[in-house]
This record gives sequence, structure tokens and C-alpha cells, in this order.
Amino acid sequence: MTVRFGLLGAGRIGKVHAKAVASNPNAKLVAVADAFDKAAQDLAKSYGAQVRTIDDIEEAKDIDAVVICTPTDTHADLIERFARAGKAIFCEKPIDLDARRVRECLKVVEDTGATLMVGFNRRFDPHFAAVRKAVDDGAVGAVEMVTIVSRDPGAPPVDYIKRSGGIFRDMTIHDFDMARFLLGEEPVSVSAHAAVLVDKAIGEAGDYDSVSVILQTKSGKQAIISNSRRATYGYDQRIEVHGSKGMVAAENQRPVSIEIANADGYTRPPLHDFFMTRYTEAYANEIASFIEAMTKGKKAEPSGADGLAALLLADAAVQSVKEGKAIKI
Amino acid sequence: MTVRFGLLGAGRIGKVHAKAVASNPNAKLVAVADAFDKAAQDLAKSYGAQVRTIDDIEEAKDIDAVVICTPTDTHADLIERFARAGKAIFCEKPIDLDARRVRECLKVVEDTGATLMVGFNRRFDPHFAAVRKAVDDGAVGAVEMVTIVSRDPGAPPVDYIKRSGGIFRDMTIHDFDMARFLLGEEPVSVSAHAAVLVDKAIGEAGDYDSVSVILQTKSGKQAIISNSRRATYGYDQRIEVHGSKGMVAAENQRPVSIEIANADGYTRPPLHDFFMTRYTEAYANEIASFIEAMTKGKKAEPSGADGLAALLLADAAVQSVKEGKAIKI
Amino acid sequence: MTVRFGLLGAGRIGKVHAKAVASNPNAKLVAVADAFDKAAQDLAKSYGAQVRTIDDIEEAKDIDAVVICTPTDTHADLIERFARAGKAIFCEKPIDLDARRVRECLKVVEDTGATLMVGFNRRFDPHFAAVRKAVDDGAVGAVEMVTIVSRDPGAPPVDYIKRSGGIFRDMTIHDFDMARFLLGEEPVSVSAHAAVLVDKAIGEAGDYDSVSVILQTKSGKQAIISNSRRATYGYDQRIEVHGSKGMVAAENQRPVSIEIANADGYTRPPLHDFFMTRYTEAYANEIASFIEAMTKGKKAEPSGADGLAALLLADAAVQSVKEGKAIKI
Amino acid sequence: MTVRFGLLGAGRIGKVHAKAVASNPNAKLVAVADAFDKAAQDLAKSYGAQVRTIDDIEEAKDIDAVVICTPTDTHADLIERFARAGKAIFCEKPIDLDARRVRECLKVVEDTGATLMVGFNRRFDPHFAAVRKAVDDGAVGAVEMVTIVSRDPGAPPVDYIKRSGGIFRDMTIHDFDMARFLLGEEPVSVSAHAAVLVDKAIGEAGDYDSVSVILQTKSGKQAIISNSRRATYGYDQRIEVHGSKGMVAAENQRPVSIEIANADGYTRPPLHDFFMTRYTEAYANEIASFIEAMTKGKKAEPSGADGLAALLLADAAVQSVKEGKAIKI
Repeated sequence: MTVRFGLLGAGRIGKVHAKAVASNPNAKLVAVADAFDKAAQDLAKSYGAQVRTIDDIEEAKDIDAVVICTPTDTHADLIERFARAGKAIFCEKPIDLDARRVRECLKVVEDTGATLMVGFNRRFDPHFAAVRKAVDDGAVGAVEMVTIVSRDPGAPPVDYIKRSGGIFRDMTIHDFDMARFLLGEEPVSVSAHAAVLVDKAIGEAGDYDSVSVILQTKSGKQAIISNSRRATYGYDQRIEVHGSKGMVAAENQRPVSIEIANADGYTRPPLHDFFMTRYTEAYANEIASFIEAMTKGKKAEPSGADGLAALLLADAAVQSVKEGKAIKI
Repeated sequence: MTVRFGLLGAGRIGKVHAKAVASNPNAKLVAVADAFDKAAQDLAKSYGAQVRTIDDIEEAKDIDAVVICTPTDTHADLIERFARAGKAIFCEKPIDLDARRVRECLKVVEDTGATLMVGFNRRFDPHFAAVRKAVDDGAVGAVEMVTIVSRDPGAPPVDYIKRSGGIFRDMTIHDFDMARFLLGEEPVSVSAHAAVLVDKAIGEAGDYDSVSVILQTKSGKQAIISNSRRATYGYDQRIEVHGSKGMVAAENQRPVSIEIANADGYTRPPLHDFFMTRYTEAYANEIASFIEAMTKGKKAEPSGADGLAALLLADAAVQSVKEGKAIKI
Repeated sequence: MTVRFGLLGAGRIGKVHAKAVASNPNAKLVAVADAFDKAAQDLAKSYGAQVRTIDDIEEAKDIDAVVICTPTDTHADLIERFARAGKAIFCEKPIDLDARRVRECLKVVEDTGATLMVGFNRRFDPHFAAVRKAVDDGAVGAVEMVTIVSRDPGAPPVDYIKRSGGIFRDMTIHDFDMARFLLGEEPVSVSAHAAVLVDKAIGEAGDYDSVSVILQTKSGKQAIISNSRRATYGYDQRIEVHGSKGMVAAENQRPVSIEIANADGYTRPPLHDFFMTRYTEAYANEIASFIEAMTKGKKAEPSGADGLAALLLADAAVQSVKEGKAIKI
Repeated sequence: MTVRFGLLGAGRIGKVHAKAVASNPNAKLVAVADAFDKAAQDLAKSYGAQVRTIDDIEEAKDIDAVVICTPTDTHADLIERFARAGKAIFCEKPIDLDARRVRECLKVVEDTGATLMVGFNRRFDPHFAAVRKAVDDGAVGAVEMVTIVSRDPGAPPVDYIKRSGGIFRDMTIHDFDMARFLLGEEPVSVSAHAAVLVDKAIGEAGDYDSVSVILQTKSGKQAIISNSRRATYGYDQRIEVHGSKGMVAAENQRPVSIEIANADGYTRPPLHDFFMTRYTEAYANEIASFIEAMTKGKKAEPSGADGLAALLLADAAVQSVKEGKAIKI
């Protein structure tokens, strides 16, 4: 079976998903929609797809699934529309920045029985997936403590920050999902600290750029998250799972693996400087997983519920910083 | 100048310090005292020292300094006695498990003008010291976030746990000192989570074995500490300092640096399995620093105030777990 | 400009190049030829190409270039035919196993002015290319010594061995090319040792499976090559260039970068187990370089002369083993 | 039993051995002899030993063993004298630069039944010893190929070079011993290449500074050695043993294990810059092994025969370079 796709949104992340769909032997990119006609035209042309309006895609008989890459504030509405239209839905995270709106939306998804997958791409990174597999295979015994370091090469523009929902809902949310993915048990308590150390303008926009979080599950398992909007040495993405029998860790990735030694020491090149090069394989694997879910009747994961769970942890982190206490979930 | 030493306590850590004193070209081990005569005799014999009582050492004209390695509940009393006797004092951590008692003791030290150094040996590990030096040299710019992972190969006996003051005052206290050493600014807020995941007997003794802590300074710098009483792969001791210009990290140490590759992959041997082999150089450097402070008139550091500061962070962590909130210092 | 390709040979390596051509935005796969019709049909279908005979491709107006992936003993003839037909030619290594035949063939290429590039894919590996770039950028100063370790996960079938020209012409030839690529000066002397340590059947076929080679240039620069047909831990491919100012090295590549630590130590997964996964990027970059040479008028490298030079080193190595002496080139 | 030592030669390496003897619980440094009285006095004073003449040490009843650290051209004579005097002998490498003289000397040792150990310290490096142990334990199966990289931080003074017997007998000889130690079978063939790339003055002194060697055993096992008198990044000492079941490698050692990451990449400090800091543990273990051989009746290894075997490989390498062929042993 070939899954026929409509792509909503032809921006940066839309292009990534278009390529992933086009390269997949079980998928076909049929149509692209974007408010900017030229963006839609260019992308459609690259992959032999048509440009259509969102309305047309909604009603199209020749489209089985949509990939939603439009601005965040349109996600929930589009999910509801396409769920009702009987399409399978892959939506970039987040569903919405407001947990109540997410719950309403997921109700529609549930009522319609639609397939919904949320874009937490890191689960599909080969290295992180291998960590999860090692855990599942019992390599570390019972999971006890998870450590996640996640630092961006640089802060996004303040305009983006303002619309982002704040660092916990925009950036840490990936780590909340990864912590849930690896802990194997839901966090019930969240303590967070946050500060502005990188750029005052971020603070003036009401956000933080440097945060630390502890999650704890009912049985006492703990996850620690360290985030910064600054890492001069590249996109720093490490996870480590410590258990009763040992530890498994995923190392950082670099585009080139050479080392130069001289009188100053041994130097390896910086890490990837951009999430799209760091997570190229993850994005391809993610769409492949969505397609596999549709064609083989597997559950599409991460689900809408996963999206909600990560958002609730982000909300709790915001509250923890504000109130100076651990927040119960 | 040769510093003439009396050693109080000939147990495990006493032997470490006796060797460090005996190997130092500017020091001489003159006398050893221990409640168990045989232990004192054996150790004294190894280094050509005499066995004396604590009273005799206190009054001895041929002794300039003492190393206190007796049980924790005698530390504060001995510090006061030897401060009044005009001896320089190196005391194993902690001064006392009760911050009020520590304050009283430090008052005596201050009044007598005695030299007091507290045994936070990790500051003297060549690798951790090199991290601090890199920070001081500006290699990472302004410090923003410190990450400390510290896991013991195995839990101590429950009898020890009961007298230890609990994991925060016994184990994490080293990491609190290291965080202070590296942050360059005092923590003003502490959030801690704790659980019993390794050994129920530890929980029954009223303690935890797996803890996570966030420290935050006034300007927003953060330190994260992850502790476990269990690490099957050896003594896991890593620190990482992230700043405005970059990061510096100290890797784990292993006794042997080989790697075996076969069909199962590439395997390196486990880490050190004991703090005394891991920190051999640190202990020697620590006593050398104390001797240097005495002979060259430098300040002996870490000081009694450093010992107190780390204890207060431990007390705050205990309170944070109990009350489920960030504790202000 | 779009380069229109004919592919000769739809076997394993043919598929790799077909994909590289099809994925390249400046190329189009027009036709596929193979003695086995089904292989040609399947491959052509995957990329929307036609199946044609070699004769048809030779005469085709809609084909600018060919990729020769047929058996080795057809390479020289095909190069001559397509050179005379005015096509640009990318030919898998080697041109021929007999240096005289190679010289004849290159004479035809020269006379016709045809573009010929030989498939030494490793030059295009991002990591090895970065080593070369570091050398060119002066990172190690004047090159002095090159070390190449190249071990296959396992030996090919003895039937392949018999037709291969022997390990020096089949396997080491890649390392001879890499040594030339990195030394920056032609070797003038070759000493080689060889033995059968892996599989007696290889010895019975008249070949070796474990060889060591030293190359030396006129000015005294040296390259060491170590080859084995066996590496239980995967495809071991390392190079190191040592110069007057320092050293640059390319590390091995593994499909997944995780590490598991337990009581047995720290274990990382094996390396790639196959040259096609190890060199995926190299094959894509190689064809891209050929296309760039055609479209931008750059020199196609490695050239036929490079193919000959590596073969002459292989011949010298064979002779060195036989005669027990250093062979002058 | 305590072994009572006389030390002949109070220079750089004499000091290293004096310290090793003095630190060993089963040994006592009784006397020191040196042509320069002040050197002898200083060293003797440091360890509570006496200054004596070589004649006095030869006749002394209170001395069981000697450590010979005098200039190379005195080694063979001193070994003979002290063998006849009934002392156990530890002699720094080499016994002599002339294989005939070595044979004569070993005849005397054999006739007198004296204990003789030769100072190939690297066998006692914990990391290299662990490689050998892994091989003995079968971790890599049957040994097939050994790779040794050995580069000095800088060349010694030309005056030293002139007396050294040349790079093969002075520097590579350590690697010849290591190759024999790891191959588990005697080399029967040697091919060597050599050049002057580092310092013309070395060439004018009749020596080389950059050499490559292949050794081959009867069954076909091979060892490759790469030597340079220059390594800007420190004392580069790596070995790797490849066998039928896998590989074991010893990594380089650095004084401090930190890593700094910034916009230029990830940088670790240089390696040790001196053989005495690199091999501190090896020297202590070496003397301990000699003492253990004496006190526990074990064979002292490496023996005089080991010293001769390495010298013969060096002689063969010299001849191989001169004659441009593989030399049979």
C-alpha cells in the first residue's frame, strides 16, 4: 500500500517532511498547501506534487494522510478538521500551547477514531532509539535515573521566543518527552529552576534561557534535565540512563570525525550546528514510522496523549519556578 | 622548614594521610594515636613514628600540626583542643553533622587564630583541579551551569549509613563543595528529590540512596547533582562546567586504559572500584597543600567556613525533600 | 545542466551508483544495461529509467555519461568504446588488473580527450576528505608519515579471490590510492610482507589475507599499510597523517553511537559490517564530484593515471613479497 | 627478605631507579656510586644511602644486587664484574651496542649463574601489561598483526645521537622488544625504511629520525613499527594487537583528562611530554619485578637473551635500510 500525503505548510520543517515522504518507498507526496504560494509551488515542483488549498486537501479522495507543519496556533484546528475528514494526521509538536485546548482537540480525535501522531522526532534518532532498545533489552536493569543535557547552539530570535510558549513548552518539552520515553513510568512531581544568563532580551520577553529540572516518578525514579539556549561548540544532545545493572548513554554527534593533535592538544571539530543536520535520520525514521503505523495497523506513537503529557510537565515546570516548590502532577 | 605531624586515628583514611605525610619532603610523621593500640603501633612502625596518646600529642613541643581521622563525633572537640594547643589542624570532613556545633567550633578556631583545613579531597584531584583552572583561565567564559554526576560503586554498610548523617551530609556534601568550588558564587536556593531505589535497608535506616539536587545562585547560575549509591561499572565521578564561551569537563578515570574489540563491540575496563585508588593523587596533593599553607603562609583551603557552607547546603537538601519546595539559604 | 547517465551493470555496486545518480539534482538516470535482464529491469524501474543494450547506450544521443559497474575484465574495453563514442566515463576500480592493458586503454582515453574518473570512493568519505583538507590547510605542517589500517569484516568467497588479482590489487589498492592522496609525493620504493593467517583456502588460491606494506617517497616520507581480511569487530578503516607540526586522524565509524557500562566495563557497538553502509556518503559524494567535473569543467579525479599509479604500487608489492626486497618504482 | 642494593650511576635514570628501590618495601638502597661525587652524594643523602666506589660495592658483603645506570659503553664490563662478584644485576638497556660483545657478556652471566634483568621498562607499563594479559587470556584469539606507534616529543641532542648506536638500536629497540613480547613468536624477517625528516643534523651524524619497520615471524604473523623523533602533541605510545577473534589496543596517556569545548571544537590536553612521567609506574613495577624475581625465585625477565634478541632485530633493520631488502634472522 502507498500512503498518499498532503503537506500543510511549506516552510523549513515542511521541507524536511516533504523530503522524508518523497524518499519513502511506501509514500507519495500528492499535494502541498501554504499561505505563501511561491513556497508551495517550489516545494511541490521538487517532488512532482500539486499545489492545493487546505480546503481541497481536506476534501480530496486521493489523499490518505496529512503532515501539519503550519504555525503552532493553527495545529489544533487543523487536527480537528482533518480528523473529521477521515485523514490520518502527523502533526509537528505542539498540538497547542494550552493544555485545555489540547484536551478538546484530542477529544475530537478520539471521537473520530483518527490516527494522530505528534512530532517528537528525537525518539526516532538512531542513537536515542538504541538507548531505549538497550533499556528494553534489560542492559541496565531497572531504570533508576535519567540524565538529559540539551543545549542549543544559539537562541532563536526574540520574536520567536515571544510566540513559543516559553522555553519549557518550546525546548524542554522534547526532553520531557524523552524522559517519559526512557523512565518507563510517569513523573508525578516536577521541580524546576530557571534564569536568564544568555540574553537579557529573552528575559524582557518574559522567558528564561537556562533551566534545570528534576522529574520524579511514584516509585522514586528521577530524571534530570539541563537546558541552555547557548552552546558555542554546537548542538549538545546527550542522554544517559542509569539502572540497577548499569548505564547506557548516547554520545553527541558531529558531522566529521577527525582529530587533530598538535602542541595545543587533541582537537575534534564542533558538533552539528543545526537541529536539521543533527536529526536528519530522525526525521526520515519518524515519517517512516507514521507510514508503517498506517500500513501495518500499528499504533502511531508518540500519540496525542504523549503530546499532552509532555505539555503538562512543561506547565508544571513553569509553575514550579514561579512558586518555588515541587509541583505534583 | 619541616612540618612535624601527629596523626589522630590509624584507620583506613588515617593510613592514607600517614602515607601522604611520610612521602612529603617537607613533612615528618612524629606520632600516631589510636584507641586501638595495635593499629597505632603498626602504622607508627611503618613510618618510623612513635605511638602517643592524644593528650601527649596535644602537649608535645615537637609537633606542629595534627591530622584528625577519628570518628566524626569527636572532630569538633579535637579541633577545639588542638586549636587551643596552638597546633595547625587538618580535619577529615565533616567538622560535625550539626551546623550549630560546627559554628561553635569555628568560633574557637577563629578566637585562637588556628590554621584549620577541611578534607574535601576532590578539589585536589588533578583532573578536577584542571577544570577549575580552565574556568579561572577564562576557557569557558562566565560560568552558567555545572553538572556533577557522582555515583558510588556500592552502598556502605547500613551501620555506617545510620551514623553518617544521611546521604546528603555524607556523600552529596562532596558535590556541594565541588559545586561551590566551580560556580564561583554562593548558592541561594536548593531543590532536592530523593528516593530509595538501591537497597530497602537504607530506607529503613531513614536514609535515601538515589538523589537529585538543583542549586541556584543569586545571579541565576545553576548546578545539578546526581547521586547514586550504586554503579556496577565503578566509581563514577564526572563534572562539567558550561559557560558563556564553552564547556569544560573532567572524564572518568580507570586504572587501565585498554580497549578490546570483538564481535560484541569495543569494551574498555570498568572504572576504579574504590575511592582510595580513584583519589590517590588527590589525597597526596591535599596534604601537600596543607603543608604548603603552613610553610609558605598561604591560606589553608578548603577552610572551616567551606566545611560549614557545604553542610548548610546538605541541611537545605534534607529540608527540601521533606517539604517539597526550594529552600532559600 | 543535467547530466544524462547510462549505467552499465546492475549488480551490487551498480545499485549504489544508480541511487547516487538518481538522488543528484543535476543528473538523470536514463538507461540501464545488464546481461541479466531481470536485474536491469528491476533497477531501471526503481528510478524511471529504460533498459537498453550496451550498444544502444553507446550510440544514444540522450546519454552524456556512463557508469561502468560490469565485471573487471570488461572495464578496459568499455572505457575505450565509450571514450570513442564521446561519452564521459566513470569506471569502478580497477581499469584492468594488467598495467600494460591499463596503459593502452589510457592512451585511447588521451587520444579521444574523453573524461575518465576511476572509482576510488574513499577519497570522498567525509572523514577522510576532512583529513586531506586539514593537511592542505597546513594543520600538520609538512607531511612525514601516513598510517593506514584497513581490515575487512570477513574474507570474500574464494571464487572472488581467484578473479580478484590478489589482495594487493583488490583490497590494498584502495590504501595505495589513499597513501598517494595523503603523502603529496609519489612513492618510489615499496616493501611488502604477506601471509595466510585467516583462511587456508585463500592461500590455496594463490593469495594472501594478511599484509603489511611500507611505501617511501623520494624525500623520505613514509606510509605504512596494514591489511587483514578479518576483523570480528567490523569494518576497520583508519588513517593518520603525521607531520612536522602535528597529526590528524580519522576515527572509525559505527552505525550507532551508544555506550553501555556495567560490571564488565564500558562497551560500544561494533563498527559497520559492510563497505556499502560504511561508505554510503562517499559513494554519493563521488558521483556528485564526477557530475561537478562535467558540469563545471573541473578535472575529474581520481583520474585514469591515478588508477594506474595505484596498480603499479600493487604490482610492486606483489614483487616485493616474492623477491624479499624493496621494489623501486 | 630485604634486597640490599648498590646503584651505579646517579644520573637521570639512576634517580628514577633509586626512587623505585627506596619506595619498595622489600628493598633497601645501601650505596650509590658515580664518577661525579656531588651527584652521588645528593642522591645517597635523599635516601639515607652511602656513597661508595664501584670497587667497594663489588666487594661489599651488605649488597645483594646492583642497578647499572652508567653510560652504555660500561654496561658489559660491569655486568661481567658483578656477575663474577655474585651480585644480582639489573642493567639499563642496552647491554652493549655490539652483538658480539653482548654474546661474550651473556656467556659470563651464564657461566656464573648470575641473575640478570635488562631494563625494557615498557613491558611493565600497566596499560601495555594489560594488553599482554588480554592476549594471554585469549581475548583476541591467535595473534596475527601487531601495530606499534612510538614517537618522541622531540629529538635528543646530536651528541647523544652520535653515541646512541642509531635510532634502531636506541629508540626502535623498545618497540622490537614490545613486538617480541606481543607476537608470541620470534621474527624471522625484517624490512625497514628510514629517512631524515625532522633534523638535518641527525642525518649529518649518520642517523635517521623517521623509520618504518615490518617484522614477520615464521608462521606469518606481522608487526609494524612507526617511529619519529618528533611529536608536537607529546609522547605518542600506542600498541594494538589484532588476532583471529578481535583486537586489543592501549591508548595514549595524558597527565590530565579534561576536555574543553568551544567554537573551535573539543580539545583535550597534550600527552605526557617526557618518558619519565609517562612511564613512572612502569619504572616502579620494573624494579618490583626484579626484586620479586630475587626474593621469590622467579625468572628475571626481560633477560639478557631478550636484550640480545632486540639488538639483533635492530642490527637487521640497519642492514635492511642499507641493502634495500628484507633481512632474514
